[in-house]
Amino acid sequence: MHESARFGGHDAVARSRIGRLLRFYRGSDDSDKRRFLTQLNEAFGPDPQLIRVAIDAYLKADEQSTRESALESLRNHLDSPRLKLLGQFNLMPEGVEELVRMRADLQRIDDGCGGLAALDRDLMRLLASWFDVGFLELRRIGWNSSAALLEKLIRYEAVHEITSWSDLRNRLDSDRRCYAFFHPRMPEEPLIFIEVALLREVAASVQTILDESQPTLDPNAANVAVFYSISNTQPGLKGVSFGEFLIKRVVEQLQIEFPGLKIFSTLSPVPGFMEWLQRQDVEGLGRNLPPELDFIVSGDARTRASRLQAAIVGRQDRMAGRRIEDWTRRQCARYLLTERRGNAPLDPVGRFHFSNGASLARINWLADNSPRGLRQSAGLMVNYLYSLKEIEKNHKMYCDSGILAASRQIRRLLDG
Amino acid sequence: MHESARFGGHDAVARSRIGRLLRFYRGSDDSDKRRFLTQLNEAFGPDPQLIRVAIDAYLKADEQSTRESALESLRNHLDSPRLKLLGQFNLMPEGVEELVRMRADLQRIDDGCGGLAALDRDLMRLLASWFDVGFLELRRIGWNSSAALLEKLIRYEAVHEITSWSDLRNRLDSDRRCYAFFHPRMPEEPLIFIEVALLREVAASVQTILDESQPTLDPNAANVAVFYSISNTQPGLKGVSFGEFLIKRVVEQLQIEFPGLKIFSTLSPVPGFMEWLQRQDVEGLGRNLPPELDFIVSGDARTRASRLQAAIVGRQDRMAGRRIEDWTRRQCARYLLTERRGNAPLDPVGRFHFSNGASLARINWLADNSPRGLRQSAGLMVNYLYSLKEIEKNHKMYCDSGILAASRQIRRLLDG
Amino acid sequence: MHESARFGGHDAVARSRIGRLLRFYRGSDDSDKRRFLTQLNEAFGPDPQLIRVAIDAYLKADEQSTRESALESLRNHLDSPRLKLLGQFNLMPEGVEELVRMRADLQRIDDGCGGLAALDRDLMRLLASWFDVGFLELRRIGWNSSAALLEKLIRYEAVHEITSWSDLRNRLDSDRRCYAFFHPRMPEEPLIFIEVALLREVAASVQTILDESQPTLDPNAANVAVFYSISNTQPGLKGVSFGEFLIKRVVEQLQIEFPGLKIFSTLSPVPGFMEWLQRQDVEGLGRNLPPELDFIVSGDARTRASRLQAAIVGRQDRMAGRRIEDWTRRQCARYLLTERRGNAPLDPVGRFHFSNGASLARINWLADNSPRGLRQSAGLMVNYLYSLKEIEKNHKMYCDSGILAASRQIRRLLDG
Amino acid sequence: MHESARFGGHDAVARSRIGRLLRFYRGSDDSDKRRFLTQLNEAFGPDPQLIRVAIDAYLKADEQSTRESALESLRNHLDSPRLKLLGQFNLMPEGVEELVRMRADLQRIDDGCGGLAALDRDLMRLLASWFDVGFLELRRIGWNSSAALLEKLIRYEAVHEITSWSDLRNRLDSDRRCYAFFHPRMPEEPLIFIEVALLREVAASVQTILDESQPTLDPNAANVAVFYSISNTQPGLKGVSFGEFLIKRVVEQLQIEFPGLKIFSTLSPVPGFMEWLQRQDVEGLGRNLPPELDFIVSGDARTRASRLQAAIVGRQDRMAGRRIEDWTRRQCARYLLTERRGNAPLDPVGRFHFSNGASLARINWLADNSPRGLRQSAGLMVNYLYSLKEIEKNHKMYCDSGILAASRQIRRLLDG
Repeated sequence: MHESARFGGHDAVARSRIGRLLRFYRGSDDSDKRRFLTQLNEAFGPDPQLIRVAIDAYLKADEQSTRESALESLRNHLDSPRLKLLGQFNLMPEGVEELVRMRADLQRIDDGCGGLAALDRDLMRLLASWFDVGFLELRRIGWNSSAALLEKLIRYEAVHEITSWSDLRNRLDSDRRCYAFFHPRMPEEPLIFIEVALLREVAASVQTILDESQPTLDPNAANVAVFYSISNTQPGLKGVSFGEFLIKRVVEQLQIEFPGLKIFSTLSPVPGFMEWLQRQDVEGLGRNLPPELDFIVSGDARTRASRLQAAIVGRQDRMAGRRIEDWTRRQCARYLLTERRGNAPLDPVGRFHFSNGASLARINWLADNSPRGLRQSAGLMVNYLYSLKEIEKNHKMYCDSGILAASRQIRRLLDG
Repeated sequence: MHESARFGGHDAVARSRIGRLLRFYRGSDDSDKRRFLTQLNEAFGPDPQLIRVAIDAYLKADEQSTRESALESLRNHLDSPRLKLLGQFNLMPEGVEELVRMRADLQRIDDGCGGLAALDRDLMRLLASWFDVGFLELRRIGWNSSAALLEKLIRYEAVHEITSWSDLRNRLDSDRRCYAFFHPRMPEEPLIFIEVALLREVAASVQTILDESQPTLDPNAANVAVFYSISNTQPGLKGVSFGEFLIKRVVEQLQIEFPGLKIFSTLSPVPGFMEWLQRQDVEGLGRNLPPELDFIVSGDARTRASRLQAAIVGRQDRMAGRRIEDWTRRQCARYLLTERRGNAPLDPVGRFHFSNGASLARINWLADNSPRGLRQSAGLMVNYLYSLKEIEKNHKMYCDSGILAASRQIRRLLDG
Repeated sequence: MHESARFGGHDAVARSRIGRLLRFYRGSDDSDKRRFLTQLNEAFGPDPQLIRVAIDAYLKADEQSTRESALESLRNHLDSPRLKLLGQFNLMPEGVEELVRMRADLQRIDDGCGGLAALDRDLMRLLASWFDVGFLELRRIGWNSSAALLEKLIRYEAVHEITSWSDLRNRLDSDRRCYAFFHPRMPEEPLIFIEVALLREVAASVQTILDESQPTLDPNAANVAVFYSISNTQPGLKGVSFGEFLIKRVVEQLQIEFPGLKIFSTLSPVPGFMEWLQRQDVEGLGRNLPPELDFIVSGDARTRASRLQAAIVGRQDRMAGRRIEDWTRRQCARYLLTERRGNAPLDPVGRFHFSNGASLARINWLADNSPRGLRQSAGLMVNYLYSLKEIEKNHKMYCDSGILAASRQIRRLLDG
Repeated sequence: MHESARFGGHDAVARSRIGRLLRFYRGSDDSDKRRFLTQLNEAFGPDPQLIRVAIDAYLKADEQSTRESALESLRNHLDSPRLKLLGQFNLMPEGVEELVRMRADLQRIDDGCGGLAALDRDLMRLLASWFDVGFLELRRIGWNSSAALLEKLIRYEAVHEITSWSDLRNRLDSDRRCYAFFHPRMPEEPLIFIEVALLREVAASVQTILDESQPTLDPNAANVAVFYSISNTQPGLKGVSFGEFLIKRVVEQLQIEFPGLKIFSTLSPVPGFMEWLQRQDVEGLGRNLPPELDFIVSGDARTRASRLQAAIVGRQDRMAGRRIEDWTRRQCARYLLTERRGNAPLDPVGRFHFSNGASLARINWLADNSPRGLRQSAGLMVNYLYSLKEIEKNHKMYCDSGILAASRQIRRLLDG
């Protein structure tokens, strides 16, 4: 029973201190919270003096063992006192959830200015260790889940709004699947969830998937699983990465349940496309520009954007329609495959899937004609393919050489 | 869905690497394991070159923001590559358990020599973060628990051996309680457990508690909860501290269930007492030495020890008995309250309870007459009192001034 | 292991026979079902010949032991062969549910004509024994229940329609309760459920209870539990009585959870009132008839009814309003307390509560102004009080002398 | 909500009456219990007067509808008032269990004399309806089951005594299975349980199965499932038949889990064999009698029996041994296949399995050398085969013509 006395007695003291602090924090308005967070950020960081001393000791240490302990000491002094304090939240029954909420507050209060960056980094480190993907539990969500949980899906869905309980029910039907990650300390809160349609072929339009009047497919007859929506739910966990792991766990799960599934694909938006398009200069846009889109090389950005949207959904003769479609697809392929920020693809969704080892398989015309779909993605949706045989190879090529995997069909759009 | 791509794709790759590594490790014998652990210890530590560069960058950074990122970079370089690797064990279904087992291997293989200390420190850091007390679940163990779990109690009990299923059943009767901490990733493994007897008065002998022929008390009529055994079960978690928190959670739990409980006390061994006694010189022992124990100031240590044990349990006239008891109690009080290693009490059990804020209430004569009880503790057992009103104060005095809390009765033994 | 061989081997044979029968039945349309049920009704009843023989044997038996076994044999021959067959449905996983459905079919197909009465009686006997109230499980239904279950509440609610998920959510809020009985063999099907509002005072109007904009009460501050809706869900279990037991179990449950509750009352419709009123003759109606309701003693029934409804909700000067209210209340008291069918009250809801030992406490004016409320109950709702002290006494008086318990206020309405 | 008022209010009254009755009964000693049961038996039976009246009405009824209701009325009068009273036990939380216990009391108190037969028959009818096999839940029992449950196996095992927790653990190992039926109202009580060994070939000796030192087989490599023990646990449910259904459910279960299983067989005692043998006359025994067993045709029964046991286990030359074995096997085949009580086999275990449709496959020599095994079964154990293809046919032949299925090997023993 010989317990180390290292933290002896501290826990009880810590708990009552954290308890008081939480009660104060919960009762605060935003300006009080900002003051509290600012103080944490400024007054409880690592001590430069102590770090300097530890560095000196390390630099002077000349044998293995003293160097080891100097290293240990340096490491300790780099960790801020606030990190220890925040870590003790875990002693409280709701402490983990409260800390997630506190970081969400910080994101809201600090947004962009970055005045609280050091505190944010400590919170993120702590939460990343607590929410290590190994501790998360994958659970299927269905019509048998509690109404309280399902209500949260409605609230959290970030990609394709759930418009009613009947829309939701359709998404949980026997030929649909929904999975989420949960943390043992927040058992009622889905951290991220993904919606999957089991189909006979890869979907080219999200409206078809969401159409409640479509007949239900026998899921055992499905060949294709389409991931058509994935939503992070906790702003306080921004930057803590679950999505890649969720997709892969779900692929494994589905393969066990439905051995007939051959293709795993997303149906994804291209959220940065239109914004990027509006920033392009004449030269970039002019190549192969059909006469119907002449306006695109002049006028102000917003007007051009809304005229483009009108042209996409508007009625025109078939030839003109084909020309508009053709030109837009090419621009999209160019945007997704060649535009970078540093080494990474510019489009955030593309960045996520390419780095996971997926490949861009298809660009679908008039695939999301919702107002948002048109405004952000010009109505396009794309399929990223998760081919289990290729994932590792694609991922390695992405990491080593920045190469993005794409189907021949897509590559041809670039060449044209 | 814009997931950070930071670890993009790494997880899947990491999982297959860890999988191979685990299969290799499981199939190894001890000499292979030693070689594997040694390589981890030597070849995957932090890189001194990179640390030096990061230190230089930090020392040169002159504004807040560059200093912050230099700090971050330094912190990253202090973490060894093996720490990242070991952290990825969590991706495997049994990874957490495997790592606990690996550290147990290391403890066994390395024991004492310390050649693997750096690796051990990394393992301990990782496990301490995974087994943060906030993630543990307190569960009551009873006769309704599974036989598979109860069998583990029999195996793990470290203080008072469980001799049969009927002994175990007695310890789980309606006037007994057993609680354990569990981790969500090792749901079948108790990490630490504590056994409690609900009584009318503080127990002076463990044999009375364990006597199966004693009548069962209506637990609602109990005034006293005696913690008579607490066992850590995982050598791989050595140094990760649960015990203090367990006691306090159990006290809270019991207070809710039995509002009639007034006193919470341990019945603890004094495991270092006899060994210490044998190391004492004549002067220390001689004070008030009764004639019956004259032998104690001469002869070799083992002989004196066994003669002392004989004297304690042997028959003698009442006066002699009282003298032996009196002298032994005094020595024990001296040992527990005045002997230190650094600031901390020498006795490991005492160290644990004093640092938790408990006070030494009573020394019980002939309280554990098992062979081990006599050999280690001269048959004595002591009561450490967990008085909820005093714990914080005691703990603070212990931390600030090294003062050990004890009852008046005990203090008087010292003065005598 | 010496099992009686009485049914030896029969079960396996029975199962495959029942299996075939169920597959046939499920695939049938109503005319096939009618034919099937008719055959069961006619060809598998008890055999009059055998009964006659058994009666003769009984009448001749002259000592105790032969009489006993003659009795046993007579009893067996009174049970129809179809009863044994139907009993074997229980061997199939879904057999219980199927039999409930079969009886619902029978009710629908046979309705009123009674041609299948003997079969219906056998089904009812069997189901009454399977659904003995002692086998039912009381479960609370809340917003944490599954959407699949909650959807059934929406479908089954028979008294006050649930108009949306948000209406439902309001009925499951923290100051509301919903309980249902379930059978172990139909774990997803509520058999009967009751909705309760926790309030500061006895509700006089159901619209207030259902108003989503009302603030939520701290349920610990409630004095009154109002049962405002109770719905049987299974037509196949018609005549199998759960309601009385449900109310009493819920009262017990609520008393444990909220010791502050002092009053348990229903808010009930008077579903037969208007129909009864239309059948009354001039003499009965004329007493104290206010001039505003003169029309009531002439014209055809439907016209009078709709004019009465108009008068109830219409605008009029205060004195006239009071006169209409007063007269209607008196008629209602007369209807509930004096009109009988045999010994039992004519109103079906009243019959249920009076026989349970409840007392009629209050008649509420303009308490349910929904179209159905006006059409059936003249907008009135009444409170039946479940006073735990009085229930047994009231019940006994009801059984022994047909006396109906009512408050002094109500009694005065009768005298006026 | 229009509940039938038939039992209105009765339930609450019934519950308090039953409650008082139960408290009285629980506190009674056996002589009080006998008095209580006797009164139930004598004073609360069906009323002959009322039966006579109902019979007269039935005999006089001349049309369908009056005959139907006369039948209903007659049926009601045949049911004793005590049946209704006992049925209300179900309203109490522990009522079902109490009634099972009451019948066990009756069995003990009344044993043999039969003075309480009428009451016993009513109890049996009620319990048979409550414990209808369709309501029972099949659960696997393993080392993960609670110690409290496993302790009951030790107590209840009726065929091959469980001598220790380690014996029990061996019976729950990965190549063993144990299944039991439970009733929803007695969730902690196994009603009947069966022990199964998964083997490479049909076992010829129970000691081999129970030998803890035998290596554990990979259950997926097993071809044969041997049912070596089946125990009813509740004397209060004597005559309520579960065993046949249990075996068949377990066979189904095992086939799903282990598709490699080809043979399902029992290893059963022949409990009436030795007793029967002692009653045989010289002629029956004398055929083919080996000289070593000459004593069997003279002397008193007990002496012959113990000499026979000695001869079976004793050392002798090989030829003599063969002769003894051969003669004993023939007698056993004769006993099992030709001795009847009425149409049913005399041996109770044989009766059970033959009527289930099993066939006698093998008689094993020296298969149970425990004292009981020798005393009852002459050390023999037999295998009854449950061949899924043959069960129905065998069962039909048994019912229709009293034919007992047996292997050719066994038949030859008869012919010899």
